[in-house]
Amino acid sequence: MKVGIIGLGLIGGSLSLVLKKKGLADWVMGTDASPMHMDTAMQLGIVDQLVDINTLVKEADLVVLAIPVSAANKVLPEILDGINSRQVVIDMGSTKRNLLQQIQTHPNRGRFVATHPMWGTEFSGPQAASDAAFAGKAGIICNRHESDEDAIQLVENLLRQLGMHLLYMNADDHDIHTAYISHISHITSFALANTVLEKEREEQAIFELASAGFESTVRLAKSNPDTWLDIFKENKENVLDVLNEHITQLRKFKSCLEKENWDYLHQLMAHANEIKRILK
Amino acid sequence: MKVGIIGLGLIGGSLSLVLKKKGLADWVMGTDASPMHMDTAMQLGIVDQLVDINTLVKEADLVVLAIPVSAANKVLPEILDGINSRQVVIDMGSTKRNLLQQIQTHPNRGRFVATHPMWGTEFSGPQAASDAAFAGKAGIICNRHESDEDAIQLVENLLRQLGMHLLYMNADDHDIHTAYISHISHITSFALANTVLEKEREEQAIFELASAGFESTVRLAKSNPDTWLDIFKENKENVLDVLNEHITQLRKFKSCLEKENWDYLHQLMAHANEIKRILK
Repeated sequence: MKVGIIGLGLIGGSLSLVLKKKGLADWVMGTDASPMHMDTAMQLGIVDQLVDINTLVKEADLVVLAIPVSAANKVLPEILDGINSRQVVIDMGSTKRNLLQQIQTHPNRGRFVATHPMWGTEFSGPQAASDAAFAGKAGIICNRHESDEDAIQLVENLLRQLGMHLLYMNADDHDIHTAYISHISHITSFALANTVLEKEREEQAIFELASAGFESTVRLAKSNPDTWLDIFKENKENVLDVLNEHITQLRKFKSCLEKENWDYLHQLMAHANEIKRILK
Repeated sequence: MKVGIIGLGLIGGSLSLVLKKKGLADWVMGTDASPMHMDTAMQLGIVDQLVDINTLVKEADLVVLAIPVSAANKVLPEILDGINSRQVVIDMGSTKRNLLQQIQTHPNRGRFVATHPMWGTEFSGPQAASDAAFAGKAGIICNRHESDEDAIQLVENLLRQLGMHLLYMNADDHDIHTAYISHISHITSFALANTVLEKEREEQAIFELASAGFESTVRLAKSNPDTWLDIFKENKENVLDVLNEHITQLRKFKSCLEKENWDYLHQLMAHANEIKRILK
């Protein structure tokens, strides 16, 4: 299978490395808006060939969109214009509703499979790509019924061979669940970093005192602002909804401290402990 | 050296395991308020002998307090009453101001070294103890000048042999820095767990969709409520101070989303990225 990857950053680069390692792609073509990313991807052996996007769309059996959501929104209709009825196109993005609305009536809609591998790190760019990516995490397929059966099967096989467990959702539910379980974590982490940078003016103290607990809570604050701006734009309503709830929850902690309501503070923490039942 | 450890949970248990592994203790006596913890600690080989607290204080060269802060506040003056001028007492707690105020004029104040190893996990109890604990993290000594020189040297050597880098602070500064760098992380994580449990009523979705990012941000929400209630009580003012700042920071994200102020949202995230300079 000839694979064409548009966007050679963390996600696209990792996908290429895993496909090559597992022998799932005979040839990987790649392109990126950044010439530097292209050079790095070639040097690191992430892709076999650098091509322009038109060549990629013409020649790849599988076209992969691994670019920020707003860019995917723009380019996907044009890609679907240019493919034949045997090619398959997937995206790897964190939001789906707007993307799928846009191509709903496209004659080649069936060739596209909306895909979201729930994997990532706080790092970005091709230099952050990992050939150990994706395994053990969820691979979500949205609006399965809108894609052709052969395209779905190709993508299902692919995700399974990456070691992912398959989940199916409609795009609206997907965007709600990811706001709750992924997007809010990034906001809390970005905001925590800003909190600590604001309060703790002695950077040396942050460096010296940081424990594993602090590092894990603030880790996502290292994430790429371009990627996340796009996700927050796309999923504004759902993110606001969960962010409001999060501020409400924090205000409960604040109120307990102010009023020295220790029983309720203990209850809040004991309730939070329930996450142990769900995540070991 | 005969070591007596009061409190055989995560911290006390781990200290014992590391001391034994490194050959730094010839004999470890232990006691705990929970008979179950005592049994488990003995079964796991964490301690050599279970004793009552009076025997422990009488016989140990080094007495270690590894119990919640409020309990340490109560028991420390009595321990100092019972020791001779060659014994050394340390605590391992997360707050220091009240503890040290309480013993400021005690005739044996010099035998006590206020110690805070910046290490922990979200787990608790002797079964969570690890012989790989402490290494690579900060070992803080507070109000060094109030301790006898030989006691300080014993503790400094010990912390160095645990692989920790030494830091010195006064108790007030310690409680401020730990509020900023450790205690707020726990509140954000507890509150995030409650947020997600509130919004995401489908627990199966949390389980299936959880990515590494979510898991690391919410990890501390598994922490022991008893331990943390005590810390938040002791450090109420500093924790409230940083919690207010954190709510302010989150409200900036909220306002950006509401007003679609994307430039400022990008700025907020780019600023948070500065944590990369400090924590690799």
